[in-house]
This record gives sequence, structure tokens and C-alpha cells, in this order.
Amino acid sequence: MPLAELLDTLSETRKLIDDALERFLPPEDAYPTGIHKAMRYSVFAGGKRLRPALMLWTCELCGGDANLAMPPACALEMIHTYSLIHDDLPAIDDDDLRRGRPTCHKQFDEAAAILAGDALLTHAFIVIVEHVADPSLAKRFIAEIGRASGTGGIIGGQVVDIEASGSNAPARRADAAGTLHYIHTHKTVPPFVAAVRCGAIAADASDADIDALTRYAEDIGLAFQVADDILDVEGTAEELGKTPGKDAAAAKLTYPALFGMAEAKAKARALVESAIHALDRFGQRASLLASLARFIVERKG
Amino acid sequence: MPLAELLDTLSETRKLIDDALERFLPPEDAYPTGIHKAMRYSVFAGGKRLRPALMLWTCELCGGDANLAMPPACALEMIHTYSLIHDDLPAIDDDDLRRGRPTCHKQFDEAAAILAGDALLTHAFIVIVEHVADPSLAKRFIAEIGRASGTGGIIGGQVVDIEASGSNAPARRADAAGTLHYIHTHKTVPPFVAAVRCGAIAADASDADIDALTRYAEDIGLAFQVADDILDVEGTAEELGKTPGKDAAAAKLTYPALFGMAEAKAKARALVESAIHALDRFGQRASLLASLARFIVERKG
Repeated sequence: MPLAELLDTLSETRKLIDDALERFLPPEDAYPTGIHKAMRYSVFAGGKRLRPALMLWTCELCGGDANLAMPPACALEMIHTYSLIHDDLPAIDDDDLRRGRPTCHKQFDEAAAILAGDALLTHAFIVIVEHVADPSLAKRFIAEIGRASGTGGIIGGQVVDIEASGSNAPARRADAAGTLHYIHTHKTVPPFVAAVRCGAIAADASDADIDALTRYAEDIGLAFQVADDILDVEGTAEELGKTPGKDAAAAKLTYPALFGMAEAKAKARALVESAIHALDRFGQRASLLASLARFIVERKG
Repeated sequence: MPLAELLDTLSETRKLIDDALERFLPPEDAYPTGIHKAMRYSVFAGGKRLRPALMLWTCELCGGDANLAMPPACALEMIHTYSLIHDDLPAIDDDDLRRGRPTCHKQFDEAAAILAGDALLTHAFIVIVEHVADPSLAKRFIAEIGRASGTGGIIGGQVVDIEASGSNAPARRADAAGTLHYIHTHKTVPPFVAAVRCGAIAADASDADIDALTRYAEDIGLAFQVADDILDVEGTAEELGKTPGKDAAAAKLTYPALFGMAEAKAKARALVESAIHALDRFGQRASLLASLARFIVERKG
């Protein structure tokens, strides 16, 4: 599928996701209003909705009804948003700008940002149990999304990211490469994996289909992070909606820092090819997901 | 049941809960170890385990197998612990001492405390889906515990507590009383309600039994908070394991501050009587829960 068609499809899917998020989040005028305003400020800050879109598309690819995957798709986006809010806090990455707007603790205050993150994480699980009628399906969604989010997933990756930054970075190159791989495969990959697995589960896909999609997601998740590291070096603040060069300033472990820019770009391209190869069993029906894989490393922000 | 017998039973139940928490939490030596150490530091900081014990006892009172209620009981305790870790953060209550030990961000650092709280909240839901075999039961447990924890429960109460502190306290006494009631019935009551409801649900109790136990939990939850407010005035640091007088220093809305100490104590006693009355339908079998209601207002820390 050509890039323009992918972007049109993403734009349409994004509208559906935003409508669902609007329905699933507590209303802004519900008391106590401050926390609901902060939650919505960050959820509706202009994210691309890649993870929830991937979940819906995977469900359709496997012959399922995407409406069944909408609650876990929105739950995954709420968890993605909470993790950004908490990562941006002064005690962690101390970022003032996110998607071109003040971060949650800058727009409100630190207490509000901590609690808005907590509330989005909690609400993600509430949305699944309240909007997924089939208990077995709800349980499987929560297992996938919970594991992707805990210390074996996003939180574990973030912890090692903090530990390995600045003067604590591993001195030996081999150790640093291992640590970098751990960070990427825990902080960034698991939400992509949870997205395809929940989508496939919602469609009652075969184990073989779920396995192939998991390999695809592992590749694009890692490609996404390598591309992010490259953009942090080469992108502008306007393209990124956040301050570029933050990784270098914080002496963060990144692909370009460790292997050089040329090898980082080659790695990203190789991952995209591997991801597309994993989709072989689906043939032409998987052209949307193949196109998404390419977009993930070609995007400018 | 005499107080001594209640304390013996609580001590035995606490051992069972601590054993289960030990099994359900990620091992301390699992990589990344720092986050697992911080989670366990706060979970095993000497809490009384009142909420999980109440869940197990309610399950037994309704004729159920308490083992079925152990995963949600531990999940509720993990959520209780996360909420304390985040409340203690410098940006919120800024507490250095909790249960006689340094708070999580004092023992480790702020980033570790934020992430350990996030991880405990996430892990609570993981424990339920991983250790409750029946999907319908898992879904009902998550619905009860999720609602008690979100902006309609603990987080909502905490938000209003922050908003109403210090110079932002409502000027009119009637407004202040309404705000205080909101804080208590959201920050403190919902975990007690979730405890009895999950326990009763695990035992497949009747709606009438669940309703009666819900009224009991609403009363003891409120009594617990009124007693806490009283202890903050009258208790010593040694008894409390935390700094007394913090509420007055922060100009927090409390029962004694708003209604005077005599009326606060009368309110606590009246709530206990009401709670015990709600147990009438269970007769002598509910003596443990009746005794717990009395303990909640008579405790010294």
C-alpha cells in the first residue's frame, strides 16, 4: 500500500479511536474535574494512535470485528499516555515539551501529573472490564496488556533506561549493547506486541497467526525505537513536537550513539524487511501492516 | 469476639497474606532488581493487612473458600501500598516516615518511588488474571477493585484532599463538611467496600448478603478515617509509625478540626454501632467482623 493511502487509513482509524476514547474516559465536567481535565489534556495531545490502530487493523486482518478490539485498543493508548506523563516528570526525564505542547506537569502541576498518570493506568483496566462483555476475552486482554506494562515490560525498560543513563552507562561496549537491547525490547516493543496479540485474540485467530504477528510486532517495535533514536539526532523540534538532542544531553544509550548513524539506519531497514517477511502467510491482505512497518522508520516525527 | 482473640486471628491471617504476597510479587533477585526491591520494601513495611484480611474473612463468613479470594486480597493490598507510596511523594504529601521507616522515595529515590507505585498498581491486575482461574470471577474482582481505585475512588478522594488543603479549604462550614465527606468516602471507604464485595463474590453470596456487607464496609471505612484523624491529633510518633500533627500543620480538613474532638469520637462510635447492626442477618457467625469494627476505632496506631 502506498504511503498516502496508509496515512489516509490511519487518519480515519484515528478518528474512530478518538471517538471511543472520548466515550471511555470520564467526562471532563465530572467531579473532581481537575483530574479528568489533566487525563484528557494528555490523551488528546495529538498522539498518532499507532498502537491502538495496529490492534484494530490486526483484528480485521484476522477476520474479526474491530469493535470488539476497541476497548483494549483504548486501554493500551491510556497506558501509553500514562507512561509518557510519568516519564516526563522532573524526577525522571524532566521534559517540558511533548507533542509540541507543555507536558502534563508543566500545564498543571506535579501532583496532578502523578495522579493523572495513576488514573489513566487504573482506567485502562476499568475500560476493559466495563466494555468487553465476554469474561474470557476481557481476562486475556488484561493479561496481554498487564504483562506489557509491568516490570517485565514498559516499567522494567524504563527502570533500566534510568539506571544506564549518564555516568552509570556500562563501560564495555558489549555490556552497553546488551543493556540497550534490554531497554528497547522492554520499554518500546511490548506495547506493539500486546497490540497485535489482543487484535488477533479478539478475532479468535490461530496460534500460528498469533505467532507470526508477534514476530512482526517485535520487529516493528524495535524499528520504531531505533527510528526514534535517529530522529532525536536528526529531527527538528517542530517535526518532533519535543526537544531534540535530549538523548545525547542525558548521555542516554541509543543505537546511533553506540553503533553510529549508518549502522543504526541499516538496522532499522533490516528490521522492517524482517517484519514484512513475518507477514508472508497473510499475503496481500497484510499490505496495510506492511506499509505501517515502512512508515514507522520513514516518519519525520 | 474479645479483642485479644481478634488480634490473634489477624496475626494468623496476616501470615497467610504475607506468604501469598511473597509468592505473587516478582522475586527480589529478578532483573531489574532495583524496582522489585522498592516494591517489596514498601509492601513488607509492616502494614496491618486489614483490607485483605477483611476480604478473606468475608469470604469465609459467606461460606466460601478463602483461597479463592487470596489473589484479589493481595491485589487490593498492592494498590493500597502504591497509593501510600505516591501520596508520600514530595509533590503530594511530602512524608519522610511511614510505619516507622523511611518512605519509599527516602529509602530509594523519587524516580524509584514513582515507578514502584506504578508497578504495584499494574501488578495488582496481573495477579488477578494470572491467579484466578474462572474468567467471570476475575472480571468481577477487577471491576470492584478498579472502581475503588480510580477517579471515582481512591484517586478522586486524594485529588479533592489536595485541592481542599491549606488556603484552598472551603470557607463555609457546610461546604467544608461536604468536602470532607467526599474525601473520606472516596479515599478511604472504597477499598473496604471492595474488600467485602470481592470476598462475598468469591463465595457466590446472595445480593442481600452483599448489600448488608457493603453497608458494614461503608461504616467501618468511614470510622477508620475518623479514627485516623483522631490519632493524628492524639497519637505519638512511636504508636503511629509516622509523624503526628501532620494534618494540622497542612491545614487539612479533618473530623476533629471541623467538628471538635468530642463530636469526632462520638461519630466514630456511632459508625461502629451502625456497622455491627448491618451484620445482624449473619448472627453470631459475624463476631469476627463485629470485633474488627470495634478494633478499627480503638486501635492506637
